[in-house]
Amino acid sequence: MKALVLEEINKLSIRDIDIKEELSPNDVRIEPQCVGICGSDIHYYKYGKIGDFIVNEPMVLGHEASGIITEIGKNVKNLKVGDRVCMEPGIPNFQSEETMNGIYNLDPEIKFWATPPIHGCLRNSFVHPAILTFKLPDNVSFEEGATVEPVAIGMYSAKKAKIEPGDIALVMGAGTIGIVTAISALASGCSKVIIADIKDEKLNIIKENYPAITTVNALNVDLLEVVHNVAPRGVDIFFEATGAKNMLSTFTKYVRPGAKAVLIGMPIEPVALDVVGCQAKEVTLFTIFRYVNMFEKSLRLISSKTLNVKPLITQKYSFDDAIKAFEFAASEPQDAIKVMLYK
Amino acid sequence: MKALVLEEINKLSIRDIDIKEELSPNDVRIEPQCVGICGSDIHYYKYGKIGDFIVNEPMVLGHEASGIITEIGKNVKNLKVGDRVCMEPGIPNFQSEETMNGIYNLDPEIKFWATPPIHGCLRNSFVHPAILTFKLPDNVSFEEGATVEPVAIGMYSAKKAKIEPGDIALVMGAGTIGIVTAISALASGCSKVIIADIKDEKLNIIKENYPAITTVNALNVDLLEVVHNVAPRGVDIFFEATGAKNMLSTFTKYVRPGAKAVLIGMPIEPVALDVVGCQAKEVTLFTIFRYVNMFEKSLRLISSKTLNVKPLITQKYSFDDAIKAFEFAASEPQDAIKVMLYK
Amino acid sequence: MKALVLEEINKLSIRDIDIKEELSPNDVRIEPQCVGICGSDIHYYKYGKIGDFIVNEPMVLGHEASGIITEIGKNVKNLKVGDRVCMEPGIPNFQSEETMNGIYNLDPEIKFWATPPIHGCLRNSFVHPAILTFKLPDNVSFEEGATVEPVAIGMYSAKKAKIEPGDIALVMGAGTIGIVTAISALASGCSKVIIADIKDEKLNIIKENYPAITTVNALNVDLLEVVHNVAPRGVDIFFEATGAKNMLSTFTKYVRPGAKAVLIGMPIEPVALDVVGCQAKEVTLFTIFRYVNMFEKSLRLISSKTLNVKPLITQKYSFDDAIKAFEFAASEPQDAIKVMLYK
Amino acid sequence: MKALVLEEINKLSIRDIDIKEELSPNDVRIEPQCVGICGSDIHYYKYGKIGDFIVNEPMVLGHEASGIITEIGKNVKNLKVGDRVCMEPGIPNFQSEETMNGIYNLDPEIKFWATPPIHGCLRNSFVHPAILTFKLPDNVSFEEGATVEPVAIGMYSAKKAKIEPGDIALVMGAGTIGIVTAISALASGCSKVIIADIKDEKLNIIKENYPAITTVNALNVDLLEVVHNVAPRGVDIFFEATGAKNMLSTFTKYVRPGAKAVLIGMPIEPVALDVVGCQAKEVTLFTIFRYVNMFEKSLRLISSKTLNVKPLITQKYSFDDAIKAFEFAASEPQDAIKVMLYK
Repeated sequence: MKALVLEEINKLSIRDIDIKEELSPNDVRIEPQCVGICGSDIHYYKYGKIGDFIVNEPMVLGHEASGIITEIGKNVKNLKVGDRVCMEPGIPNFQSEETMNGIYNLDPEIKFWATPPIHGCLRNSFVHPAILTFKLPDNVSFEEGATVEPVAIGMYSAKKAKIEPGDIALVMGAGTIGIVTAISALASGCSKVIIADIKDEKLNIIKENYPAITTVNALNVDLLEVVHNVAPRGVDIFFEATGAKNMLSTFTKYVRPGAKAVLIGMPIEPVALDVVGCQAKEVTLFTIFRYVNMFEKSLRLISSKTLNVKPLITQKYSFDDAIKAFEFAASEPQDAIKVMLYK
Repeated sequence: MKALVLEEINKLSIRDIDIKEELSPNDVRIEPQCVGICGSDIHYYKYGKIGDFIVNEPMVLGHEASGIITEIGKNVKNLKVGDRVCMEPGIPNFQSEETMNGIYNLDPEIKFWATPPIHGCLRNSFVHPAILTFKLPDNVSFEEGATVEPVAIGMYSAKKAKIEPGDIALVMGAGTIGIVTAISALASGCSKVIIADIKDEKLNIIKENYPAITTVNALNVDLLEVVHNVAPRGVDIFFEATGAKNMLSTFTKYVRPGAKAVLIGMPIEPVALDVVGCQAKEVTLFTIFRYVNMFEKSLRLISSKTLNVKPLITQKYSFDDAIKAFEFAASEPQDAIKVMLYK
Repeated sequence: MKALVLEEINKLSIRDIDIKEELSPNDVRIEPQCVGICGSDIHYYKYGKIGDFIVNEPMVLGHEASGIITEIGKNVKNLKVGDRVCMEPGIPNFQSEETMNGIYNLDPEIKFWATPPIHGCLRNSFVHPAILTFKLPDNVSFEEGATVEPVAIGMYSAKKAKIEPGDIALVMGAGTIGIVTAISALASGCSKVIIADIKDEKLNIIKENYPAITTVNALNVDLLEVVHNVAPRGVDIFFEATGAKNMLSTFTKYVRPGAKAVLIGMPIEPVALDVVGCQAKEVTLFTIFRYVNMFEKSLRLISSKTLNVKPLITQKYSFDDAIKAFEFAASEPQDAIKVMLYK
Repeated sequence: MKALVLEEINKLSIRDIDIKEELSPNDVRIEPQCVGICGSDIHYYKYGKIGDFIVNEPMVLGHEASGIITEIGKNVKNLKVGDRVCMEPGIPNFQSEETMNGIYNLDPEIKFWATPPIHGCLRNSFVHPAILTFKLPDNVSFEEGATVEPVAIGMYSAKKAKIEPGDIALVMGAGTIGIVTAISALASGCSKVIIADIKDEKLNIIKENYPAITTVNALNVDLLEVVHNVAPRGVDIFFEATGAKNMLSTFTKYVRPGAKAVLIGMPIEPVALDVVGCQAKEVTLFTIFRYVNMFEKSLRLISSKTLNVKPLITQKYSFDDAIKAFEFAASEPQDAIKVMLYK
């Protein structure tokens, strides 16, 4: 089986690799068609580890994928050979306490593609549980299907926030996650979403493609004034998507009494939280870990044209040029959101 | 003061009426600009009562209104003379248990416009609490402002349903309330909304103006098949907006396990509920009484163009022709959603 | 293997039966020690069916059990041979949508002990998933462990009601389910629980064993007056545990604005619901199907002495006398709550 | 009118003071019977300010009180002269957005007893809104009634945590607030509550009076081991009641995936929060500001003997000895929870 293998730090190869996978009765076999490159793929490529997850053996990369089913297990009923699908990349223990409680994403035993020592999906084919494999609606393309994984994070953030129709949200950070959060918040009932960053390139991509979102370069513009113009008492929802260390010590000035915050960005170290500021407005802070049960619902909103994911794909490469694509993505290009690989 | 007065059953007059209203420090005085005719106005006109509420004295009609502020009380800070506004028509006891708990709509002492013995707003001017008076955004017209009252019912239904982004909803009944519920559900994160009725006229208005909504005439089409095509396990949310007596004995076939239902329609008598069918899918049934805290959020979604309320206004009359307008609305016209009166 | 077999209507035998069960890696094998007799066991015994579930083949009865582990699968970590345990009797498809969403009790494919064609647990031993097998705390006896199944229904009702500390609840029906609901409501933060029935025998058992619960014979006492004495605006929570057909047409007089109702009783046919009465107080109606994720939490409250389940066991028989026990239970004894069988 | 007046830092006097209060139609006049001394009273006494609230003028202290009604306004229906009552000390603007939304505690205009420039209740009499005045049940004494104010904070913390029956909680901090939180958590459905502190005196008071609570001196005992013994996956609820600066950087090790934390303690400055640790377990963090709508529910649980507040009162003084009582309370006595003043 051919695959994109991270051999060691800074060294990728496209080569044959021997991965034995049995097709259990509840599994399907899939041939990938599109795979997006994620920040975590790049991080493993450049640094060989994320936190405690260390690449000690050659590992296939990739976890944002769509593909075609080539084989199905004998218990599988809702999918058939030839179906166009996308996949949720984390496989929990299906008989764990977390799974039984509907929070399988928090199962400590979860196996997640391209998180060492689990191989990713940038290879000829792979086996996956049918329950984590989602049929693409006819009007959703493979490349759109491959964006569902990052979109699911934004959708889950929006769901966690328990948005009420008409709420106003502020998103800090215009990276991929900030953008998918902003468009998910709009799709989930927000009447207005402000997104703030300090880099014009990202904000410009948003301005061009998502005119409903208000963009603010916080270096040039007084964000608090922008907020108070549209929400005099403060925003209903605050999404933190930067992971920057000063965010939580000052954010309460932007929010209304009774507001909710969702912490999505992952600061490297503990960061200062203004507890008394939160208490004075009784802010509730939600945190999220990836997503849970969000793929089907994301697909529905892409299919209904509520979520427009096409502008997220800013660069395209073939699977054969995957190494070139990774090198590009690793160069921290400011005009890129998602680099997509095609079969 | 001139007003549209319901003298007795079937007898309206436009005449002077003496209503003394003092402007308390937290109040504003308003001159109405647009007033929509509601089904309850028509019901009092034709039958002189709704349930225990009986018109024993001449009563001014109207409770769906927008207007201009002409005077403000000395404590009022957020509004000023000349402001364009719309009004929430129910005034609770502000020091009641219900108000303190954020459910002032359920305060038994609430005084609601055009609900006997409380006069409505179809008169030269009226006094209203500032906290129940909402500034219209610049891009929201008086006629749009006058639709906020019925829209708030749809918005509140959508909020009660705790819609998750991507949910699929079924609305039974294509009357005014069914329509405002359907557009509110879409605005609140639903990926798809099906609306069913047995009258083509109403469904056609929807089809023309709200193409995102799937319309079904349940007399001609198998609704269950339509539902299963878009939601094989059943819909996530069921909105009952007919009040018909057979709805709750059969609806569970349309919904998925864990679904939510919102009962908006008001059946004249108790209706049969399939309790065991609900239990087998653990359906939660929400009921609503008008709305609470929904005016500002509705205005935000109208202003952001997420909610398009203009198609709701199907007939227009001047205040001077109000009696003619009531006669028309009382004739049960099938091509009407909302009859609007203009100053 | 020896078992209590329902051969056909009204015919039980204790005899050898051949049940082949393989121990999968996630399973344990258990030898039962105590088994309670449930109303559904009696119903199959007397009528051979419940709804669409028909006993066409001889079937082992029993689903409320505690036991000792005699063998464990190779993946099982949290349990060991010799552990004292109780078991959740419904086995879902672990890779279903419902399980992934944390509502495995609603999985249409669930296999539930002693629900045809699935054998129950009144036999020498059985195999069960470890994740549905719960270690008894040291201070919880086998007989207490065997009550967890019915207690879980009361606990789940209490959880569904989202009781706030200090709430007042009214439980209609003093059968087993009414009682476990009442004690669960008290354990979950209710300051007061009123239970109403029309049979003194059941109420007397409660009066003697659970003095914190207020008992009302609704034939002799004005229930509304009792309610208004302790909760002038009405109760916060209404638990319907009778399944009687007139309950939902009149209950709203007992509840406060914003109240919650939990429908636990299972009426044979659809019953009249006072929709407008519910709307006027915005009552939310929850329904439940068995329970989900309640065994461990029930055990904790039994172990902490918050839930006293011992008075529930009113009659005791040995496994050898199981047929006699069933005959007794089938005679509708008024002084019985739970008939318990012991090894 | 005689009152306990804070003249300036460190200077109290009992003297006549002229406070004009009109009895509005919705108000009652009350003569206090018991008043507890709060940490904030002591703080103003010793430092003359808390944050931005500065004592610039002589101010009457006291806000935890019970009393007898001596006069009622003409609209007051639920209370009468002679009623024994306790009072919620914060008076919001009843026509504010926060009040309408049921979060009147967050109204920026709230007037709170003994928070400058608002006088407290340690005086002969005061006027108060009837809606914030609560009748004591017959079996609740004045001194118990005067504990409702601090108890309401614990009750509100427990309510915010959305405790499910059977949950296990960890409370950090055994001060007054830690204790009322711990007993409220037990009353709200927790099967077990662990309270940790580093001072034996406070823990000993708990050990003697509340045997159901597990006390841990974290200096001598490995708290993590204690937690894992009762909750191998971690506790369901974490209550932070110390305000210490290192708590939020390390607490996630104590909690289970999907846990909830309530931040009650008020750190002087922003404190380090382990965001990634929270995300890995998707911890939700609630913050609270005083309480909202908790007095009646607290009284119910005191009346039902679920909440035993008597042990909270550790020292007793007469109103005439109030200055002595303040001096004692200001000396940071380790054997004190609540110092109570009696008429």
